[in-house]
Amino acid sequence: MNQSQQYPSTLLQKAVTEISRLPGIGSRTALRLALHLLKQDVVEVDALADSIKEMRHNIGYCKVCHNISDTDVCEICGNESRNKATVCVVENVRDVMAIEGTLQYKGVYHVLGGVISPMDGIGPADLQIDSLVERVNKGGIEEVILALSPTMEGDTTNFYIYRKLQDSGVKVTVIARGVAQNDELQYTDEVTLGRALAGRVPFKS
Amino acid sequence: MNQSQQYPSTLLQKAVTEISRLPGIGSRTALRLALHLLKQDVVEVDALADSIKEMRHNIGYCKVCHNISDTDVCEICGNESRNKATVCVVENVRDVMAIEGTLQYKGVYHVLGGVISPMDGIGPADLQIDSLVERVNKGGIEEVILALSPTMEGDTTNFYIYRKLQDSGVKVTVIARGVAQNDELQYTDEVTLGRALAGRVPFKS
Repeated sequence: MNQSQQYPSTLLQKAVTEISRLPGIGSRTALRLALHLLKQDVVEVDALADSIKEMRHNIGYCKVCHNISDTDVCEICGNESRNKATVCVVENVRDVMAIEGTLQYKGVYHVLGGVISPMDGIGPADLQIDSLVERVNKGGIEEVILALSPTMEGDTTNFYIYRKLQDSGVKVTVIARGVAQNDELQYTDEVTLGRALAGRVPFKS
Repeated sequence: MNQSQQYPSTLLQKAVTEISRLPGIGSRTALRLALHLLKQDVVEVDALADSIKEMRHNIGYCKVCHNISDTDVCEICGNESRNKATVCVVENVRDVMAIEGTLQYKGVYHVLGGVISPMDGIGPADLQIDSLVERVNKGGIEEVILALSPTMEGDTTNFYIYRKLQDSGVKVTVIARGVAQNDELQYTDEVTLGRALAGRVPFKS
């Protein structure tokens, strides 16, 4: 199938164009999805389209941690048994879900909505950083755990937040970096391996 | 991320569930797409959802060849310069687009809408086979080219159509099978290679 492809219908073409705007979906996949939708019941296609519109129009965010939430204060922030003195800073809701999936964390979150990335035009003001500083200054928080992606953008954001919080008296920690569980050492990249060596800890049996 | 994942919002969860019904899209990808959509302008998200609904509600089919079309008779069937005596039988619109992409074919098409596949509950009555026979019986057609996928379902459908047309006097041909251009012989599967040997033709320089 070549680029100069003529679609036999402008309705089909419009849908394919819109679907292929989604990240990671090219025009071939978009056509496959559009043809799949044409074979489905009208009710099912409407359910898909409506669920997307409804989500976009009516989604809400927790006013405390800025995670996606149907209520003013999300379930985690509203949970009496969570430790409100520990705040884990993450990029987005997927990271919250990943950390919740470990069943290891009993504190609360602060969702930045991204990381500082000048290349993508995302600066500190586009993120929930001021609201984090405000939240810390209100008191009651003992530790802020930085759990951003181990990338240059994540590191930049970590450093920016650290600078903003260093005079607040709160303990700022960052999640451990090292070799991943079950990764083979020979295939671990040099930066990770170098950091794992430099960050070695006493052996505990 | 594990299976027992709790989404922080039912709106998000509903959209993810709907998106993950699409073929080849799992719940992880669906979540990524949903979060992408949440970051887009409302106008853009509405454009996507509306284009899908509009396509599903208003799509039409050519009454001659049953290809997707915005008009009663599609552009190919309505084109004076196409040879109406040669009809190429294909499974769906993607195959029409692929053959049109070769710029080698000047005849017209007949789109079956699928192939006979008892496993998927698709029988001859679910396809545009009767309308093909009717079209041939009306006269004016000299050759029917079977261009279905070289699979068991395609072969079954080829045979079924051949049987239906064998008394009509029309010439029934099937597209050539053999080794694909630029494929390395050593990696060609045995069935294809065996058929290519059996179907050898005189060398022309």
